[in-house]
Amino acid sequence: MASIKPSVPKGTRDFSPAEMAKRNFIFDTIKGVFRKYGYQQIETPTMENLSTLTGKYGDEGDKLIFKVLNSGDYLAKADTKQLDERNSNLLTSSISEKALRYDLTVPFARYVVQHQNEITFPFKRFQVQPVWRADKPQKGRYREFYQCDVDVVGSASLLNEAEFVMIYDEALSLLGLKDFTIKINNRKILSGIAQVIDKYDSIIDLTVAIDKLDKIGLDGVIKELLERGFTEADIDKLKPVILLEGSNEEKLQKLREALATSEIGLQGCDELETVFNYLQYTPLKRATLELDITLARGLNYYTGAIFEVKTNEVAMGSIGGGGRYDDLTGMFGLKGLTGAGISFGADRIYDVMEELNLFPASAEQSTQVLIIGFDAAAEAYALPLLQQLRNNNVNAELYPAGAKLKKQMEYANNKQIPYTILIGSDEMQSGLLSFKNMQSGEQEKLSADAILARLGA
Amino acid sequence: MASIKPSVPKGTRDFSPAEMAKRNFIFDTIKGVFRKYGYQQIETPTMENLSTLTGKYGDEGDKLIFKVLNSGDYLAKADTKQLDERNSNLLTSSISEKALRYDLTVPFARYVVQHQNEITFPFKRFQVQPVWRADKPQKGRYREFYQCDVDVVGSASLLNEAEFVMIYDEALSLLGLKDFTIKINNRKILSGIAQVIDKYDSIIDLTVAIDKLDKIGLDGVIKELLERGFTEADIDKLKPVILLEGSNEEKLQKLREALATSEIGLQGCDELETVFNYLQYTPLKRATLELDITLARGLNYYTGAIFEVKTNEVAMGSIGGGGRYDDLTGMFGLKGLTGAGISFGADRIYDVMEELNLFPASAEQSTQVLIIGFDAAAEAYALPLLQQLRNNNVNAELYPAGAKLKKQMEYANNKQIPYTILIGSDEMQSGLLSFKNMQSGEQEKLSADAILARLGA
Repeated sequence: MASIKPSVPKGTRDFSPAEMAKRNFIFDTIKGVFRKYGYQQIETPTMENLSTLTGKYGDEGDKLIFKVLNSGDYLAKADTKQLDERNSNLLTSSISEKALRYDLTVPFARYVVQHQNEITFPFKRFQVQPVWRADKPQKGRYREFYQCDVDVVGSASLLNEAEFVMIYDEALSLLGLKDFTIKINNRKILSGIAQVIDKYDSIIDLTVAIDKLDKIGLDGVIKELLERGFTEADIDKLKPVILLEGSNEEKLQKLREALATSEIGLQGCDELETVFNYLQYTPLKRATLELDITLARGLNYYTGAIFEVKTNEVAMGSIGGGGRYDDLTGMFGLKGLTGAGISFGADRIYDVMEELNLFPASAEQSTQVLIIGFDAAAEAYALPLLQQLRNNNVNAELYPAGAKLKKQMEYANNKQIPYTILIGSDEMQSGLLSFKNMQSGEQEKLSADAILARLGA
Repeated sequence: MASIKPSVPKGTRDFSPAEMAKRNFIFDTIKGVFRKYGYQQIETPTMENLSTLTGKYGDEGDKLIFKVLNSGDYLAKADTKQLDERNSNLLTSSISEKALRYDLTVPFARYVVQHQNEITFPFKRFQVQPVWRADKPQKGRYREFYQCDVDVVGSASLLNEAEFVMIYDEALSLLGLKDFTIKINNRKILSGIAQVIDKYDSIIDLTVAIDKLDKIGLDGVIKELLERGFTEADIDKLKPVILLEGSNEEKLQKLREALATSEIGLQGCDELETVFNYLQYTPLKRATLELDITLARGLNYYTGAIFEVKTNEVAMGSIGGGGRYDDLTGMFGLKGLTGAGISFGADRIYDVMEELNLFPASAEQSTQVLIIGFDAAAEAYALPLLQQLRNNNVNAELYPAGAKLKKQMEYANNKQIPYTILIGSDEMQSGLLSFKNMQSGEQEKLSADAILARLGA
């Protein structure tokens, strides 16, 4: 065993102290905003019953669920026929009862149904936990990654949608992003568009095509629409909608005209207007809110608002998204509970912040001061000072006696400790300690009290 | 499916908002103390390669590791012979490459070896993550539970041991525990005791017997020692050591006399004395530090100090423990790296705090104020105030329009929101809002500015 270099399973990661500090900075910031808006944290188990998860993510999704082998003599209860036929797929359910969480949405739905009698609705919850998918690992795609979800269930009020816009704006601004766009759309507007061209049943084809406007341009979209069976007449009606320009208010006005004959389309316009009205009281900090009718993510489950967030500072896919769904808990037998939610893509936000150098130095500093001594006498001299620093909530360390100055200085540098206090024989005699700013290199002789004051203690 | 009540796998738990708030209070407090002492957080993946974990926890431990089924057509690569013979035990390694983390120690050892070239030693790390064991669930024993470990590797200094005592003292005091004992022993003293009675090879038998002093008393221990092959003469020599009384200094003095002929025993005494000396500069807040030579936990891997923590306020097993080990990373081929560490038993600490009612009310409050209105006019009136509260970092919510007063008040009570602001038509006309302290029931008419001031904003 000694010769095998230890490793982690592919697609999984260790997080070193420096990475953890940055990740904590992101998660703590986002959680703080969730709490400010009245959301409360829950956690669900890593393992769910396999039956809770299967059938919720489509056939492809089911294959990506990590299954946990039953404990003990699992073959004793295995399906003999499938075993003899070597049918991995059909054998699984007889040797595996549990599986790893694939997302936070299905466990949340299970939680709401299971605990419905203890929950106060509207239930505003957030959840930050890892999920696992047996996807092929590639750059930026992992088999274990954190999701960061915030949802409200049991409230149809569009105030919730407005607050999701505020939450994105506040959290991403606090993280230091300067230019990002929160795109908003409404499923009912997409339905309305399909309705006015009498292609209500082709809504998926329609939205898949116009969703590509950014990538393939108008000509590309038209070509694809023709291929998918839309007529030139349809396209003439669609053009002004696809090419919608101007302020959100102007777009909404044009949409109302284009969707004048569609009740559901107008309802979508009303909903968007209500969200915009809520937001007039709250100037956005750094976000741009953009009505984008080409936004069609999650169309199979979103029933109202649809959100997506993109940074305009670096090339990166979506860093967040969400929407309203009207039947989250139906899969577990609790019908008619409306909900809405958004999520933050923590790994991508991390990459954006790295690229833009947005992590504050303080996020990576854990120890504020290292006391450097060389022998037992210095240790004894240092201990009361160390204690005093910690009593004043200064994160402080004393390097154990016996190491050379160079080694102790390297330790301080590697840990990004901003200050050191050097205690040699001169210092012990005079009571004036060498206090060094590790970044500027500036060094002063100061009393212990003066050092405490410098460190805000 | 609708008829099946959804549930979680046995031995696992959901954590509701109230439980999460309390758990966060515990973890945040402990993590804050770890950081104050210069420890940094890491995280390792939930899944490790099965080969990383097997053989580290004994045969019984290996059986309790949750194995993850390989993805895809796992039977295609399965061992045909074991499959035909239905040998679950031997088949496992050919259909499962990965397993769930069983503790934090082995993954930490794997981490240190894998990242040894990036790590600055002494490496002071903490780790708070769940672990999984296929144990039979029972009261207080779960299949998924959090461990909370803090370790230093690459430093032989006994300053580390002294700081572990301080960390226990500070963290548990901050959590509100008033009377708890940190027991300390040293493996070398146990070796010395075995040596002076010429039973060095029977150290396990010896320590297993004297470890039971608390439970079965001196007569019981003597009986067990006789059964295990110790002589009356041995027992005469052991008695004064087993019945050691007085202050830690007195005990140490008596131990030095009893172990005068054992070099290793005296070394153990020296080490303990050094730890006590370090601690003289740091009066313990609420802990009692007790030298207890009957403490023998983890004897198969601890090589120096041994720790265990017990509360004296309620009947509960150990709420923490640890020690020094000299070969943590040897299992992965990196020899000679000394380390020491302790852990906190978060679930038991939670139970102790519940029983003693130690969670501060603030730990459970997430939203500080709920604004109550009834219609769109009140919503429009409330939104700027809501925004102002949040801008001043007051966690605030506005209940969406349309619900009755009773329902909104219940919502505030269930969420333990300490204050409500009621906005009715009178309030909007006068500008004086009804501000209610939900605990005292006291209600006043105040301007928005006065309310902001009351909430510290």
